[in-house]
Amino acid sequence: MADFLITTFDWVPDAPRGYVRDLRLRWALEEAGLPYSVESTPFKDRSDSHFSHQPFGQVPWLTHGNVSIFESGADLLYIAEKGGKLIPADEKGRSDVIKWLFAGLNSVETAVLPFTIFKFSGDEQQTPGRQALDGFLSARLGHVERYLTNRDWLTDDFSIADIIMSDVLRLSDRFGALADYPSCRQYVERATSRPAFKKALNDQLEHFATADRGKV
Amino acid sequence: MADFLITTFDWVPDAPRGYVRDLRLRWALEEAGLPYSVESTPFKDRSDSHFSHQPFGQVPWLTHGNVSIFESGADLLYIAEKGGKLIPADEKGRSDVIKWLFAGLNSVETAVLPFTIFKFSGDEQQTPGRQALDGFLSARLGHVERYLTNRDWLTDDFSIADIIMSDVLRLSDRFGALADYPSCRQYVERATSRPAFKKALNDQLEHFATADRGKV
Repeated sequence: MADFLITTFDWVPDAPRGYVRDLRLRWALEEAGLPYSVESTPFKDRSDSHFSHQPFGQVPWLTHGNVSIFESGADLLYIAEKGGKLIPADEKGRSDVIKWLFAGLNSVETAVLPFTIFKFSGDEQQTPGRQALDGFLSARLGHVERYLTNRDWLTDDFSIADIIMSDVLRLSDRFGALADYPSCRQYVERATSRPAFKKALNDQLEHFATADRGKV
Repeated sequence: MADFLITTFDWVPDAPRGYVRDLRLRWALEEAGLPYSVESTPFKDRSDSHFSHQPFGQVPWLTHGNVSIFESGADLLYIAEKGGKLIPADEKGRSDVIKWLFAGLNSVETAVLPFTIFKFSGDEQQTPGRQALDGFLSARLGHVERYLTNRDWLTDDFSIADIIMSDVLRLSDRFGALADYPSCRQYVERATSRPAFKKALNDQLEHFATADRGKV
């Protein structure tokens, strides 16, 4: 099998370091034991070639043989199917992982993202829309908390859905959103104590630190 | 093959009618020509059984044989794979549809949702966070506009990704967000002029209208 290639930015500001989504791909590939390499695309001047792989001008994208896939959820599904790991082979187990993969992104990250944008903007004004969005996040986290109580992972075994969900929750916890959700916090701790996560995180931080040193 | 079963609410207020996500499942099943039925779950008293199928207390979920799947993206992928339609069989074509399926939900709906919450809240205050979220939506719509210019569909043929993307854009257009994005508007018109969409929409509206009549 050809090696997998992750493309990420050559450099990013300090704030997103440790949270750029190439982390999710690195993590999945480490868990699956698949060979991969990482290449860079410019953060500051995004080319037509960049947009041809990632039409929103974001990173990462995954290249393998003749396919080029953006969206971390799509990348993880592809990696799991190619690796024969991180997703069960039987139909019910597979569909359970896929529904939670979408849920992490579309039911939870959708609620986390506005919260983080308010926080990054230093905006604490409690307008009606803001209150509705905060209530939306609390409701979603409450449902995840209830589901995770007395469960180690979203499905029977650790899967690509846990990579997405734990990374999404980790982002919210950066701003203290999990203070009242102990099962969510423990779940994030459980996921991020895995060697594959630690290697993925360290490798991402080192990737950007190397870029800094190149600019000195 | 067993029939597919969509579960949706027995009733909803006027505002979400025509936009409840069972529409996406109805539409896909109509396009695929698969037999299905629709059952109701109470909107007002959401039971443990409801949460066992949909842990966020939302609708719809899809039941088929021994699988029960929530998340419209997961449902559409399952329907397409079972029906052998709305997604290509070859690896590159399949991965192209899957990445756009995730993109509609995670790159675009994530930006549309806060906008609609502000609109539903009647909140027009331009706080820094609000401005950042509005800019996020404009950027995402601009990228979709550029991509859709001179294209009929997201990939070579109409697919499950188009069901998601056009429905997401349709929701934003309810509040005029597509005024400056003619290719997006034309794309929504193209998608929603399909007979399968029209039947799905009419059937959803009739489902809730029937509930109203039952309460008179």
